[in-house]
Formats: sequence, structure tokens, C-alpha cells
Amino acid sequence: MVGNVPVGGGADVSVQTMTTTRTWDVDATVEQIRELTIAGCDIIRIACPTGKDADAVPLIVEQSPIPVITDIHFQPSYIFKSIEAGVAGVRVNPGNIRRLNDQLPEIVAAAKSNSVPMRIGVNAGSLDPQILAKHGNIPTSEALVEAALKEAAEFEKLNFFDFAISVKHHDPKTTIKAYELLSEKIDCPLHLGVTEAGPKLQGSIKSAVTFGILLEQGIGDTIRVSLSDEPAEEVRVGLEILRSLGLRQRDFEIISCPTCGRKEADVIELAKLVETTLAERPDIKGSGIKVAVMGCIVNGPGEAREADIGVAGGAGKGQIFKKGEVVETVASSEIAPALLRHIDELLTAYLSPNR
Amino acid sequence: MVGNVPVGGGADVSVQTMTTTRTWDVDATVEQIRELTIAGCDIIRIACPTGKDADAVPLIVEQSPIPVITDIHFQPSYIFKSIEAGVAGVRVNPGNIRRLNDQLPEIVAAAKSNSVPMRIGVNAGSLDPQILAKHGNIPTSEALVEAALKEAAEFEKLNFFDFAISVKHHDPKTTIKAYELLSEKIDCPLHLGVTEAGPKLQGSIKSAVTFGILLEQGIGDTIRVSLSDEPAEEVRVGLEILRSLGLRQRDFEIISCPTCGRKEADVIELAKLVETTLAERPDIKGSGIKVAVMGCIVNGPGEAREADIGVAGGAGKGQIFKKGEVVETVASSEIAPALLRHIDELLTAYLSPNR
Repeated sequence: MVGNVPVGGGADVSVQTMTTTRTWDVDATVEQIRELTIAGCDIIRIACPTGKDADAVPLIVEQSPIPVITDIHFQPSYIFKSIEAGVAGVRVNPGNIRRLNDQLPEIVAAAKSNSVPMRIGVNAGSLDPQILAKHGNIPTSEALVEAALKEAAEFEKLNFFDFAISVKHHDPKTTIKAYELLSEKIDCPLHLGVTEAGPKLQGSIKSAVTFGILLEQGIGDTIRVSLSDEPAEEVRVGLEILRSLGLRQRDFEIISCPTCGRKEADVIELAKLVETTLAERPDIKGSGIKVAVMGCIVNGPGEAREADIGVAGGAGKGQIFKKGEVVETVASSEIAPALLRHIDELLTAYLSPNR
Repeated sequence: MVGNVPVGGGADVSVQTMTTTRTWDVDATVEQIRELTIAGCDIIRIACPTGKDADAVPLIVEQSPIPVITDIHFQPSYIFKSIEAGVAGVRVNPGNIRRLNDQLPEIVAAAKSNSVPMRIGVNAGSLDPQILAKHGNIPTSEALVEAALKEAAEFEKLNFFDFAISVKHHDPKTTIKAYELLSEKIDCPLHLGVTEAGPKLQGSIKSAVTFGILLEQGIGDTIRVSLSDEPAEEVRVGLEILRSLGLRQRDFEIISCPTCGRKEADVIELAKLVETTLAERPDIKGSGIKVAVMGCIVNGPGEAREADIGVAGGAGKGQIFKKGEVVETVASSEIAPALLRHIDELLTAYLSPNR
């Protein structure tokens, strides 16, 4: 359990991100956590680079609507401060906390008495120099796994088993192989991530490919998409990955064609309008409504038979259909308002207490 | 072979998209094909909904820098017109060309004598009604595969084996299962696609997850990402998927951190600037240069050891490093120009005839 969020043991795969505010700026940090909670974030991680940041943790934990994990590098003392502050978890990077293991008995004692789980977060770029040297100074999948298992063994020696592991690299293939190896060697929750994945497009695709391949094999219990972009974007991408594999219910789904030389309706604009409109409806949560936006009759009502509601463009007009049956034909200029009206009716019916 | 592009048999996985211009508008269509070629598209498909469109095909084929495939629904006569026009391939949808099989001997004869390959393109929404009925009116993975294999058998009966197959659905899990089943049953090139995948984010993630899982198993020879967005975006996402799995060389890679409460440099802006600058350099093709943009010293030069060049933010300054070694320290305001200058030097060296 990370706070009230179960991780591993068959629980739903949870979505995490990190705040980008200064942690010592409590108001800004809490405000960002609130926004990320609305975006669908399940667990939030905050960095603690300085004592000023560590001092802010209790106030953030108190006000955060979701469980807070602190991310500790270099300074073991912040681990104790975090646990005292009531965090839901602590991430440690064994590669860059000097003499971490010398203090492990005290850390484990504190974590145990406060029921705080730990994450052993291994990153390709901050591997233990000895392990790195052993692998030809290349952070291979095997090197990442060796570093993680070595640290896990230290925790286990102290009878502490309440930990998750991550082994992140910026290359999807290296990352995939690392988690595959790791899942064969140890049975603990795994936190998936591709580190330094890059800007939005490159990072989203790297993460989707990596997590897709791993989750399909049943590997991975909690995920964090890393993008050089807003953390809310990381949450959106993470949720989309889970939804793609049926691991998270969609609030809504848009079945829209890519458009081609046949298109008779402005599908791109219409799909965006529907997406924006639906995303802004707080009452849509869990409805799973499927809306089709199809450019032509070739792949129109038929192709979108499974949609709850949809529109197919025709010459100068649009056919509104429900479950593949045409219910109304409107002029091109009326497509958008007619579609939105039908969607509204559908959602109202969905939300009716008598449904 | 689709024109000069090999598909299947261990060839590189190729990237396709469709034009969104009116096909009869030859100038606009050729202009869009040129733009898509620059974006990295290997094969282009054009719709032929009317006779006017079919008449334009010869002129488009003549001027297109990449192989042209026509997409034929409903009208078998356009298949013959396309083949006469010298297209590199024809896609037929067996679900909506009536009496396709009655005319198959003539189609196959024309395709054979012009060495034109065919794609049997099955879509969930336009399945043969008999097959659909057999599967409880649900376009299951099994129904998609049955429709594809039934049509493939018709081609094979006529001693025609120069075809690829696609079995597209809007749901990744159904699509993945369909291609997995198909690859066990038949040994021909497979064209991967998730149909009506939706707007950019949803569609990109659906495609990345689906193609990632299939390509990792060695399933898939050519891909088309379907988005309700510009076709150039489909090409960009398709290429990123291939690059993520090491199936396509990167022109450049950005290793940039997601930023957190530790950041000392504006990573998002800097990463975007580097991305835009590199994408605009025509001489970068194939260089594979790795540029790191790191927000802080925790994961800076060390984390980005594998980068050719990079920057790590510090308090009021930035460290420029090459292969993990700091080569210059500059004031915050000088980070962007200094990084771009070093990148330029590196590319100039890369491009030097004496390297």
C-alpha cells in the first residue's frame, strides 16, 4: 500500500508523476498536486534536494489529496525526516546515496514502525560505479538488475520486504529487457519508467512501446511516464497507455477516422471539439461513452457500429447515428451542434438515477 | 516490393500514410506527397472514391517521389484503372467490394502482368456480413482473421501470392490478437494498423502500444498510424515507434529529464529548442547525435554519459558536457546559444569528409 493506493498483488496499475514546483513552496506544490489529482494522478512524488524542501514535506503531506512519496538523493537524513512527516513512501537511489547501507538498519526500523514502503529506484546514469565497471562501464540491462537486486538483498537481510523496484534507462529495449530479467528474479511490485525519455512525442512513444510490451506480459504495477513537458501531460499519457490495454476504464472514447481523399466532413476539427467538450464534463467519469466521428459513408455508421453515437459526413450533410442506425440527417453546418446535443442527451440518460 | 520499397522478408519496416487532399486535385495531392516524403513517409496511399479521382492516378504516379498505392472500395473498375496507371500496389477491402471474387481472375491477371502487389485490407466496420453474423455480429479478432484468410485463399487459388494483409480494429487488444492469430496461419507480409484510432494523443498511444507489442514479436512489415490529425503527424508517430524499438535509425535523440523540484534550468523550453533546431537541419540525417538536456546536477553529466553533448543546469549557470565530461560552464542566459554552438561544431565534424 502506498497510502490508500494498493500497488502490486493484482491491484489496478496506478499512475504517478512528480511535481515540478519548488518543494519548499508549499502552496504552489499543493496546488499542482490538486491539478494532477484532477488529471487522474494516483500517487505523487516530490523531490527533496535541500533541507528547506525536506522541512516542507509535513505541510504538503497534510494537504495533498493523494499519497505523497519523497524522492531522496544524496542525503539519508531526509529519509528519516520524510518518514516522520508521514509520507506514503520513500524512493531511494542506491547509486547516489553514499553509505546508504551503513544506515539501513535505522532506515528500515523507521519505515517498519511507520508502515512506509520504499522504492529502490535504479537509474542508468547513477549506477554504483563498481557495478558499472563490472559491466564494461555500460549501464546494460544486466547491470541495472544487478544493482537493484543487490540493494533488495540488503533490505531483505533486515527482514524488510515492503519495497518496489524500478530499473530505468532512456532506451526502451534496454529498459524492457531489464524489467523482464528483474521479474524473473524477484517477486515484488515493479515501478515502470523510461528515464530521460525526452520531449513529448519521443517520450510518449518510448513509454507507450515499453510499458505496452511489459504490461502485456503482466510486468508492472505502477507507472511513471517521464516527459520534458508538464507533469499533467505525463499523467494523460500514462492513463492513455493503461486504457489502450483495457487496464483502466475510459471516461470516453473517440472513434474517429484519419480522414483521406474521401472525407466529406472536417473530421479533425470535429473530433477535437468532441474531445474538448467531453473532457470538460465532470459528470462523464466512468460513462465509457463511445463517440464516432467519421469523414465519409464508406466507413461511417458501419465502421462505427460499436459507437454509442456518431456522425458520418456526406455531400453537404451529416448523418447522426446511434449504435450504427441513422437517427437524424443534418446540413453540414449543423453537424457540430446536432452531435453535441445528442451526446448531451445520452449523458443525461446515463446519469439518470433510473437508468 | 511496393515499387522500390521492399515489404516483408526481413526488410526494414516501412511507414505509410494516406493523402487527405482530393485525389482529383493532382497538384495539391502531389504537393502533399512531397511534404510527406520529406517527413519520412516510405509509401503513400491515395483514396479513389470517384471516376474523377481514378482519372488523376496516372498523373500522381508520374510525379510522386515515393511508391503510390490506391485504396479501392466499392468499384472494382478502379482497380484496373490503377494498375494501368502504373501504381505500386492496390488495396482492396473484401468486405465492401461486391462480387470482388467474380472478377478476381481478371484482377489477378492484370496485377500479375504488371507485377502489382495487392493488400487485402480487412476493417472491423466493413466485415463481410456473413462472417460477422457467424461471430455473433461482433467483429472479433477471429472474425477479422477469418475474413482475411477467406480472401487470401481466393487469391491463392488463382496462383497469386503477391499480397499483404491487414486486420484493423479500433481496440488495441482486439487488433493485437487478430495479428497474432493471423501470423500463425499465414506467411505473407503484414500491414499493421489500428483503425479509427482517434485524435492525436489517444491514437498515437493506441498505435504505439499495439505496434510495439506486435513488432517485438517480429509481427509486422509495414505500418500505418491512423490519427484524426495531419498525415505528417501519422508519419512522425510511426517513425518514432520504429525508432523506439531500434527498427529505424534516429537522426538525433534527445535525452532530457522530466524536470522536478530540483530543476535549475528550463528543460522543457531548452529541449524544445534543441528538437526544433535539429529537426530543421537537413544535414543531420543518419548522424544519430545524442543531445542531453538535464535540469540539475543530480542526473546531469552522469545520467547522460552516453550523450554526445549535453547541458546540466546548476545554480545560475549551466555545465556543457561531452560524453559525460564537462567542457564549459556558462551563465544561465548563455546556456541555449552555447549548447547550439557546440552542437553545430559536432555536426560539422560529423559531416567533415575526413572524419
